[in-house]
Parts: sequence; structure tokens; C-alpha cells
Amino acid sequence: MVKQERAARTRETLIRSAAEVFDRDGFSAASLTAISSRAGVSNGALHFHFASKAVLVDVVEEAALTRLLAVTNGAMPLGVSRVQVLVDVSHMLAEVLRGDVVLRVGFALSGETSRPPRMDLRQRWRCWVEETLKQAEAEGELRRGTAVPDAVTAVVAATVGFEVLGARDPMWLSASTVTRFWRLLLPTLVPAASLAVIEAGGTRQS
Amino acid sequence: MVKQERAARTRETLIRSAAEVFDRDGFSAASLTAISSRAGVSNGALHFHFASKAVLVDVVEEAALTRLLAVTNGAMPLGVSRVQVLVDVSHMLAEVLRGDVVLRVGFALSGETSRPPRMDLRQRWRCWVEETLKQAEAEGELRRGTAVPDAVTAVVAATVGFEVLGARDPMWLSASTVTRFWRLLLPTLVPAASLAVIEAGGTRQS
Repeated sequence: MVKQERAARTRETLIRSAAEVFDRDGFSAASLTAISSRAGVSNGALHFHFASKAVLVDVVEEAALTRLLAVTNGAMPLGVSRVQVLVDVSHMLAEVLRGDVVLRVGFALSGETSRPPRMDLRQRWRCWVEETLKQAEAEGELRRGTAVPDAVTAVVAATVGFEVLGARDPMWLSASTVTRFWRLLLPTLVPAASLAVIEAGGTRQS
Repeated sequence: MVKQERAARTRETLIRSAAEVFDRDGFSAASLTAISSRAGVSNGALHFHFASKAVLVDVVEEAALTRLLAVTNGAMPLGVSRVQVLVDVSHMLAEVLRGDVVLRVGFALSGETSRPPRMDLRQRWRCWVEETLKQAEAEGELRRGTAVPDAVTAVVAATVGFEVLGARDPMWLSASTVTRFWRLLLPTLVPAASLAVIEAGGTRQS
């Protein structure tokens, strides 16, 4: 049992170290030796857990997907406006992207042209945004004349922009940046009467 | 003279081939041999023009910057609304990004964490958007209550999102995607009276 726990911990450490090295050196240039020495384990131990770099890349992406699902499937109390849920989740996503290299690298893999797309986190995020905005429309939350595809385009493009720009400058993933975006977008997304109710800064304590 | 022309042509071919290989293999993994053979020249000819891969990366970024400046400094007739100029230029940028691998790779270099930022095209684009929106505000074109920093955040994040998502799926750089974005954003950016005048689809023939 203790041995299994230690193996699980080593596995977690290797996944994080791999994400850090992928982030720093890029996927193609990253070496397994850099990853194992960063994790403080031998090359043999790394190979015991992961057969190849390709497997390790897949595992990092899988771990990133688990984190994304934890953000999008997190507490969504009934009776709360779907638009507010979208605002809140976009704030949470930015916060996790700011601090978690595994999620950041998982998103970056969506744009890696040297590898066929697998879990494609950006695409999954797009689907979740679309689903949530469709629910908002069905609940009558959207302003008359606002087309769901227009809103999906703007929200997905802007959040992917934050993700990419934030890799270099964390200001792009700050709460104030995300709030600025919603402050501008909300008046065109929801009717004037809802504006006083929806919080552009999100409703969750962080 | 003929010899100089041939040298200039070879240089251009090498820059394009380098951008194609960077795009396909990533900056770190790209090999000079792949670049020279794609360009149909010898390794020696490549080294005659460019001393190292780092120099070639810089030259591709420089060529991309020239293209970006051609887009942002292009025809901007006096008397035209600054907001319309912003809409038109964003359409042109998407169109060029769709077809021109050199500009696309130049933008991607802004996010390359394994190399210190140099010309930083995304940052230059941000500055141009900010400058244009400040002019729009000075001309009284913006809706009362619209803060320039909010608009800069939304426009820059969304256009960088289009650029990044478009590398995998060109639909994100299509005229209809860019038009959808502006159709949603314009009502919150300009007064109601201007909405009938500003074309979300742009005013230039392409």
C-alpha cells in the first residue's frame, strides 16, 4: 500500500515536471532526461511509468482535461443565471490557468500542429461555452437579437486569447482583465434589466 | 544585377520555407536541412544567407512585422470612422493570417517561451488597437460609458484567439467569424445612431 502510494506520488511529480519542461522547451525539444532530473527520479523510474515521450504528452493532456472538467462541472447551483455561471467559470478558468502549468500545457497542446489533436481542450471549452449559452437562450436570459453563435465566437476567441497571451504576461489572466471583458460584453449579451444583477467580476470567493 | 536578383529571390524562398518548417515542426525541432531542402537549395547556400537558425528565426519575424505594418498602415482615408478602420483592419489581418504562413509564424513567435521576445507582433498589434480606439474616443465615436481599456482587452484577446485557433481550423479566420464578433461587439462600442453606419463585415473589397 505504501509502495502504491509512493508510485502514485512519483507519477504525479513526473506529470508536473513534464508539463514544466514542455512549457519551457516546447514539446519537440523537451528531453526525457530533463523531465526525470527535474522530477528528481532516474531515467529508469520515468520509463517504468511512461513508455515514451508521446505517452507522457498524452498523460499530461489527460491530467489537464481532468482539471478543465473540474472547472466547468464545478458547483453550478440551480436557479443561478446561466450567463452568471459562464462569467464565474471563465474567471475560475483564468485563475487555474494562471497557477497550473498542467492545464496551461494541456490547452497549448490543442494548437500543436506537429501532433494530431486528441482531447483538444480548446474544442471542449468551445462546446461547454456553446452549451451554456444555448441554455441561457432557452431560459430567456439573452438580449433579443443576440445570436448564440456570435456570442460563442466572441467568448471562445477572447478566452483562448487570454490563455495564450497569459503564458507570457499573467496580467492577461488576472481577474481585472476578465472583468473588463465581461463589463464590455454583458450589455450586448443580456437585456438592460439584467445588467444590475449579473456580476462581471464573478460571484465566487477565490 | 541578375546575380543580385537571384540572391534576393533565394533569400525570399528560404524565408518562406523556414516559416513553413517552423509552422510544421515547431521552432526548436525545425532543422536547417529540412529548410534548405524545402527551398530547393544546398545547405551551403542557406548558410551563405543565414549564419544560424536563430538568425533565420529573427529574419522570419522581421518579414512578418513588415506584413503586419502593411496591414495596419494600409490605406486609411481621412474622414473615415476610426471604429470602421479597426473593423476593416481586423478583417484584413484575418485574411492575411489565413493565407500567409510567414505572418502566422511571426505572430506565434510572440508566444514562444523558449526565446526572449523581440519584435513581439502580438504586443505591436495591441498597441495599434489601443492607439486606434483612443483616436475613436477623441473623435467622440465611442458610446458613453465605454472604457477604452475594456475595448482594447476584448478586441486584442479575441483577435489573438482567432489567430491561434485559426492555425488549426481556418474557419476561425474567415470573414464570417470576424463579422460575427463585430456584430456582437459594436452595439456596446458605439452609440445606437452609429450602428446603421458601421459595417461589421468591413468596407473593403477583398
